[in-house]
Amino acid sequence: MGDISYSNNSGISNGNSHANAMLVQRKGCWYEEEIEENLRWCFALNSILHTGASQYQDIQLLDTKPFGKALVIDGKLQSAETDEFIYHECLVHPALVHHQNPTNVFIMGGGEGSTARELLRHNTIAKVVMCDIDQEVVDFCKSYLVVNRVAFCDPRLELVINDARAELERREESYDVIIGDLADPIEGGPCYKLYTKTFYELTVKPRLNKGGIFVTQAGPAGVFSHAEVFSCIYNTLRQVFKYVVPYSAHIPSYADIWGWVMASDTPFVLGADDLDLRMKHRIKGENRYLDGKTFTSASTFCKAVRKSLDNETHVYTEGTARFIYGHGHGHNSATKHN
Amino acid sequence: MGDISYSNNSGISNGNSHANAMLVQRKGCWYEEEIEENLRWCFALNSILHTGASQYQDIQLLDTKPFGKALVIDGKLQSAETDEFIYHECLVHPALVHHQNPTNVFIMGGGEGSTARELLRHNTIAKVVMCDIDQEVVDFCKSYLVVNRVAFCDPRLELVINDARAELERREESYDVIIGDLADPIEGGPCYKLYTKTFYELTVKPRLNKGGIFVTQAGPAGVFSHAEVFSCIYNTLRQVFKYVVPYSAHIPSYADIWGWVMASDTPFVLGADDLDLRMKHRIKGENRYLDGKTFTSASTFCKAVRKSLDNETHVYTEGTARFIYGHGHGHNSATKHN
Amino acid sequence: MGDISYSNNSGISNGNSHANAMLVQRKGCWYEEEIEENLRWCFALNSILHTGASQYQDIQLLDTKPFGKALVIDGKLQSAETDEFIYHECLVHPALVHHQNPTNVFIMGGGEGSTARELLRHNTIAKVVMCDIDQEVVDFCKSYLVVNRVAFCDPRLELVINDARAELERREESYDVIIGDLADPIEGGPCYKLYTKTFYELTVKPRLNKGGIFVTQAGPAGVFSHAEVFSCIYNTLRQVFKYVVPYSAHIPSYADIWGWVMASDTPFVLGADDLDLRMKHRIKGENRYLDGKTFTSASTFCKAVRKSLDNETHVYTEGTARFIYGHGHGHNSATKHN
Amino acid sequence: MGDISYSNNSGISNGNSHANAMLVQRKGCWYEEEIEENLRWCFALNSILHTGASQYQDIQLLDTKPFGKALVIDGKLQSAETDEFIYHECLVHPALVHHQNPTNVFIMGGGEGSTARELLRHNTIAKVVMCDIDQEVVDFCKSYLVVNRVAFCDPRLELVINDARAELERREESYDVIIGDLADPIEGGPCYKLYTKTFYELTVKPRLNKGGIFVTQAGPAGVFSHAEVFSCIYNTLRQVFKYVVPYSAHIPSYADIWGWVMASDTPFVLGADDLDLRMKHRIKGENRYLDGKTFTSASTFCKAVRKSLDNETHVYTEGTARFIYGHGHGHNSATKHN
Repeated sequence: MGDISYSNNSGISNGNSHANAMLVQRKGCWYEEEIEENLRWCFALNSILHTGASQYQDIQLLDTKPFGKALVIDGKLQSAETDEFIYHECLVHPALVHHQNPTNVFIMGGGEGSTARELLRHNTIAKVVMCDIDQEVVDFCKSYLVVNRVAFCDPRLELVINDARAELERREESYDVIIGDLADPIEGGPCYKLYTKTFYELTVKPRLNKGGIFVTQAGPAGVFSHAEVFSCIYNTLRQVFKYVVPYSAHIPSYADIWGWVMASDTPFVLGADDLDLRMKHRIKGENRYLDGKTFTSASTFCKAVRKSLDNETHVYTEGTARFIYGHGHGHNSATKHN
Repeated sequence: MGDISYSNNSGISNGNSHANAMLVQRKGCWYEEEIEENLRWCFALNSILHTGASQYQDIQLLDTKPFGKALVIDGKLQSAETDEFIYHECLVHPALVHHQNPTNVFIMGGGEGSTARELLRHNTIAKVVMCDIDQEVVDFCKSYLVVNRVAFCDPRLELVINDARAELERREESYDVIIGDLADPIEGGPCYKLYTKTFYELTVKPRLNKGGIFVTQAGPAGVFSHAEVFSCIYNTLRQVFKYVVPYSAHIPSYADIWGWVMASDTPFVLGADDLDLRMKHRIKGENRYLDGKTFTSASTFCKAVRKSLDNETHVYTEGTARFIYGHGHGHNSATKHN
Repeated sequence: MGDISYSNNSGISNGNSHANAMLVQRKGCWYEEEIEENLRWCFALNSILHTGASQYQDIQLLDTKPFGKALVIDGKLQSAETDEFIYHECLVHPALVHHQNPTNVFIMGGGEGSTARELLRHNTIAKVVMCDIDQEVVDFCKSYLVVNRVAFCDPRLELVINDARAELERREESYDVIIGDLADPIEGGPCYKLYTKTFYELTVKPRLNKGGIFVTQAGPAGVFSHAEVFSCIYNTLRQVFKYVVPYSAHIPSYADIWGWVMASDTPFVLGADDLDLRMKHRIKGENRYLDGKTFTSASTFCKAVRKSLDNETHVYTEGTARFIYGHGHGHNSATKHN
Repeated sequence: MGDISYSNNSGISNGNSHANAMLVQRKGCWYEEEIEENLRWCFALNSILHTGASQYQDIQLLDTKPFGKALVIDGKLQSAETDEFIYHECLVHPALVHHQNPTNVFIMGGGEGSTARELLRHNTIAKVVMCDIDQEVVDFCKSYLVVNRVAFCDPRLELVINDARAELERREESYDVIIGDLADPIEGGPCYKLYTKTFYELTVKPRLNKGGIFVTQAGPAGVFSHAEVFSCIYNTLRQVFKYVVPYSAHIPSYADIWGWVMASDTPFVLGADDLDLRMKHRIKGENRYLDGKTFTSASTFCKAVRKSLDNETHVYTEGTARFIYGHGHGHNSATKHN
């Protein structure tokens, strides 16, 4: 590297010094994340756009070279401009299109605004409640994530700053779809309680209308990383709902496969074509990532993961918790944060 | 980090200093790879096991913390102990099980030995020709990749050191399956010629028996990275063979989805269950990653990639070549090298 | 690190999560510089304050955690807020205080403004000509380096945008002190010509008044790194001037010892106390780094470097040039840039 | 960098591909150290030669590109092949040559063997006691640090595995010179007690013969870093001995200036020439770094450091301790470890 990159440092009167200079400069500043204790993922930086802090967390908006603008909370990537559409299309649309006629949705977390944005593309939606615990994160995203500005102003959106559990218990009305857009269930973590069997049974299920669907982000779902929390979230929901569908997608900026789990007491009967038809009629604009075929593929896991999902016995309860050293925490890095 | 890691440096008479010391030491040595110009992927190292050099390339065997032993050629990861099974099961088994009765296989490249190892698990196989250009790489892997020792000694394996194209042209006999286990088609790269329409038409196809199948690794196949070479390899094969099936899988140590393309003039008619049945009867031992369902899912791409595969018009020819700055090269990093 | 840093990612209701969060966030963004090809020096970043580009170079002002605001040109550190005073006090004051009555000074390069700032602290100074080739760098520093604002506005400062050699040749008047604040003499580099015997003989010396002194930054001067350019600059000046004094100082942000060479045809006769006395009378404000004793020590090298300075035979001429692979260029990184 | 480094990955038939390959490979593996929490120092690695562990610490011998073989304990650099001579010549020779006739020396720590090696070059030496607490570290260095093999076998060397304080108190005989080659005095650290006023008064001083000299490594001594422990060690010794001389030297692999303090109740009266004369007569072989002039310069600090040494009021006692967050610990990294 020496040659190319160094030569331009002395390239003042040298024709291509500028190009080289750019090359060098491009490589000067980096954002570094520890995916796991022994694994680092580093993005070259254009700039550090904004920084903020709440009583809970530190917030940064970075301009990265490989993935565009990136929202970082407590030094961990939350979502990146170039590929957040994958996470949010997968979190929102499968549950909504499987539902007969979703009008009323509750988001636990989701302060970034992208989950609401995807929901509000559905012409069946009359009301979305977004309940995030951190006012500052919401304000930060409101002001800086241009792509979600319209959503934040949509009259159908009701924004509440509160603990998701307290809010769900406080409210009388119930919902067609409830969405969990929260940090992973790390023991002692902020969101662990929002992944337990008790919570699903006593708080979530009672707030679902007949035919209602619950869906949650479920952490990394790679051939190895699914064992951290994904398989346990799946197995915990299996204890509470009659029909449970896990699915996954690769998110480049997370350097891993990501997982979601959808659950209901009404069976999921639609095929790829039915899903495409409903998306066509209900969703404003085109999805980039998700359609019927994509969902069929996304909900069919490789042999190793299928086996391990079938064999999972762990259930999240207030009492027990699974904590895989490093991993669980490490991957928290790449989870959505409430 | 300061606290934990530093405190133990002074922890001589301090109970948990050793544990902490381990923590620090673990973080001292790193293997760093530039996936792309602006994207780095770093593994903590236990040790640098072996290093060697050939007239073509430099070779290293590293002991990494996140992915075990890793083969690195010219400073680029070739394969890692913990997940190479994904790459090699995907490269070998789909073509072999789709074939009526594969007895005779030619590997272009594959000096690492893992492709031969997977082939030799098939009880239909009578002969495997592995043709790699680099004697030293082969010798290096022979001596250090314990997992492939048995394969290297199998009497059904014929090892040839030669340019794959020259060798295919030299030989009279033809094959049931021909496998491309080569570096990506980077213009000016070592393997570009082995991905062109002419090569497929005039060299590969004539060497395939009736009902024969060609399969090749096809570079990164992520939602963005597939545009580097994967879609062009697919489209080039579409010009030469009647039936072409692209498929992909996430390989953690590559930090990306990887792609393969399978091609034949005989249709691929088997469903998931047929594939499972054939694997059960033909393959010694259990696959970890691949089975019928896995293949169905692996060969169904997300909306964005399907669209872009359909619309791909570029064809690799001796004349033309597609070179995406940085990417193409960057990802070469993670490709198999002949 | 896992523990501390990760735990706080999930530390919402956890008392010290914020402090920990800071810890994590602090470690997210880094400025990385290759001091040499195999040696990296990395600063944690608070922010990237400003970026710009000229026809010659790319310019950044970074806010670094270990060294405060840092000026980076073509991806190489030029000077850092916390320790630039060392470089600039050493470049300016020894020559000025050794001179009988310096009124008139010419700076080759120095666009950053810090060299002028130190000069203008001398009450003997009537006029300073600063001749830098890069208008944009000068404008960038003018607007962003607050510490030099006053200097840039001083009526005694004449700022010229031109090649230093052309400018010196163009001008009739001569100077009491001429200061070289330029990039290292790398062959093919922008400044090589401004370090040659011919340049010193035919351009610099004729522009010095009787009793005049020339001083130049002279690159890294560490126990090993002095061999890159420092000893050659010293030896080249030895060919042209009767009295030549090399000296050095450690600059933390450069991760090395730095060197300067002072030359004249009038002997340097002052002792530490004389220097202190003159500084007391002539310099406005207090030096932080340099005084008489400091200079005595700075101009006395360790055995290894003294030996190698004595034995140096290389002379910079238009024809010859010394280029030590990697080093010369690498350290250019840390040199002042014109 | 992209260009050069990437092109060679595909450079099989490309003339200079091998050279480039080397370039790439060279950059693959790195040793990384956090000098401070926000400051990293990274060496490219050739290999990891040996690793070991004791009840106290983890031990590694690395082969680094910039500084040759490097001894790393608990993930922190202890000494590097290319420049350890600076540290050890500075630790040993000033005290020994200032002493009238040193025959009998006690080393606290020094398990690496280099301090003993330098001592044994003195023809006045009859006996050296090296007292290190860690048998494994000693054994590791004995077997792997070839440069110290002869010293370890010298009949004049008595090696004791014990706590330095206990050993000094246990022994009857006293010494001409006592040398502290220990980790920095970090509160709660392994060696803090060996830097306190009480220890110097009640343990060290009573064990010094008439005219005896005590010398200790004293941590980083840079323009900023001297405030971590160097100035306190100096001030603490000032309370106990009549004559105290601090001095320093730049050690490239430590990325900082390092400090030592020499103390006695007999004045240090020798000038540079006297020192040179004694070295000439007493020391076998040539010093590379230290001679009379070097010591004069090394014991004359810059204005900022002189001021802060004069004004230092902190004294290390069992009760009090100074701990500068990050720094103290960070720099422990680069200190000699007992």
